[in-house]
Amino acid sequence: MTTITIEKAAAMLAQQDHILVLMHKSPDGDAIGCAYGLCKALRKMGKQAQPLCSDPISARYDYLTSGFEVQHFDPAFIVSVDLADTKLLGDALMPYADRIDLCIDHHGSNTGFARYGTVDASAAACAQLLIPLIKAMGAVIDKPVADAVFTGITTDTGCFKFSNTNADTHHLAAEMIECGADSAMINRIMFDTKSRERLDLEKRALETLRYACDGKIAVISITAAMMQESGAEDSDMDGIASIPRQIQGVKVGITVKEKENGVFKISVRTTDDVDACAICKTLGGGGHRAASGCSVAGTLEEATRRILAAAETVLEEQT
Amino acid sequence: MTTITIEKAAAMLAQQDHILVLMHKSPDGDAIGCAYGLCKALRKMGKQAQPLCSDPISARYDYLTSGFEVQHFDPAFIVSVDLADTKLLGDALMPYADRIDLCIDHHGSNTGFARYGTVDASAAACAQLLIPLIKAMGAVIDKPVADAVFTGITTDTGCFKFSNTNADTHHLAAEMIECGADSAMINRIMFDTKSRERLDLEKRALETLRYACDGKIAVISITAAMMQESGAEDSDMDGIASIPRQIQGVKVGITVKEKENGVFKISVRTTDDVDACAICKTLGGGGHRAASGCSVAGTLEEATRRILAAAETVLEEQT
Repeated sequence: MTTITIEKAAAMLAQQDHILVLMHKSPDGDAIGCAYGLCKALRKMGKQAQPLCSDPISARYDYLTSGFEVQHFDPAFIVSVDLADTKLLGDALMPYADRIDLCIDHHGSNTGFARYGTVDASAAACAQLLIPLIKAMGAVIDKPVADAVFTGITTDTGCFKFSNTNADTHHLAAEMIECGADSAMINRIMFDTKSRERLDLEKRALETLRYACDGKIAVISITAAMMQESGAEDSDMDGIASIPRQIQGVKVGITVKEKENGVFKISVRTTDDVDACAICKTLGGGGHRAASGCSVAGTLEEATRRILAAAETVLEEQT
Repeated sequence: MTTITIEKAAAMLAQQDHILVLMHKSPDGDAIGCAYGLCKALRKMGKQAQPLCSDPISARYDYLTSGFEVQHFDPAFIVSVDLADTKLLGDALMPYADRIDLCIDHHGSNTGFARYGTVDASAAACAQLLIPLIKAMGAVIDKPVADAVFTGITTDTGCFKFSNTNADTHHLAAEMIECGADSAMINRIMFDTKSRERLDLEKRALETLRYACDGKIAVISITAAMMQESGAEDSDMDGIASIPRQIQGVKVGITVKEKENGVFKISVRTTDDVDACAICKTLGGGGHRAASGCSVAGTLEEATRRILAAAETVLEEQT
């Protein structure tokens, strides 16, 4: 992949037409915001441009997607946004994996799969990169584009709460509001709305809450039966794993979720610099220092016992 | 009260020493951030300055208060911050009610109780006003002051989520981060930390959740017994009343909380422009369009039945 500047990428896009913009599967607000924001700006310039994703876009993003007609064309230029690796394209978009002309991303782990790429790992959200890109293309950031970019910024920073948020993030969010972004509406939909099923699942999960290690560890479990009884789906799970870690005094928050065939997916969230990755590695998993995961076969009790033992060992070593 | 500019207020403060800074009772992050931020800036200028509040400051604000020594002096100048009305001073500070020299506030409802005042109702947080004030005093906004000001901004905007958040709010938050504010730490303590008792109360409250009016109304109740069994205190109640309104499809979220002597305090939160104030007025209460309250005597069942009837009537009229 030839690394290019944002300005070069903008010049490239400005010369093209019939542009496909690819998102990763299970698209989040940043992927959706980038794809729709970029396509809206390109269409405003009179071009044909179409966002594509292997998975359907959740109805929560209706304010970005409704009224945005599907354009069918032979693609002349293929762009990926917020995509670190073509493995994440999903089956439906896999045929494009080797044909990506331009990659716009903010993952340090980007595998360099495109012909040209502009990757800025210092950006909290990939959507931040769209602002200089669209300006350099000579397009206007109007309300629809600003809503899309704001969506990317606010979702990838947990509404400006995560530690990736810096002064730049706030300046760019301000600029999008100045361009017309309805930040209050977007934040209400993204962070202040829960399905009935989600709330019911949350109640059931809280009923399983227990503490270990003098309150330094908290564990909740979510069984297949609880999923069924609450009617919750995977899309209702967003952020559930962060509940036990939010509790005062808890350094390791653990969520044990039953999958198929007697396998449990375990999410570990930590504070105060306890290494979640070290805990999960003990059981063959991995991830980041504050958020990691692993899978354990057995019964719920066995899975819980094993992750608790791993967490207690790492806690003793590190505190 | 003589209205003055921020610059005039700064000039006044710069000439004074032995300054008391008064907060309202039940102080929130904005009041505490303003009082500590201003006193830290004043002390940095070599002055004696002391924040005062009728109520103790919660341990959650340790990062602002710890190591900040109490100074005892005969006050020569008395300032109030984030105070709309001297009624809100609380008993311990009531002796100062008629002696306030300078009022710095952002409440449109400010009663004009001070000798001089600078009130900007367009500011999402009173702490925003401190930035031009401290600059105009010729003091530096260093990390301790920036942490205090950021605390005020983020708490009064619900971490930039409420509709009072505008471009200016984000620009000023960015500036405080540039001055050293640890936004990730502050937001984690303010928005991502719950006491065990709070979580237990939340679980019990969710168990009472019921819907009315085809899911347009959701009600939770919190009894005195639930408070006792969970061990929760009033300080654990923060934001509980917004839970039922967060549910998808709910236009009116109601929280019925048992107080002493068979009285129930009812909080009503609405979306989609349903008038919460109109609902609560039916039962002798009032408030804002999206957030109102009232008190009802009787049993839990009676109180619930009466507020449900009021909500259904207003819903039918307005939707």
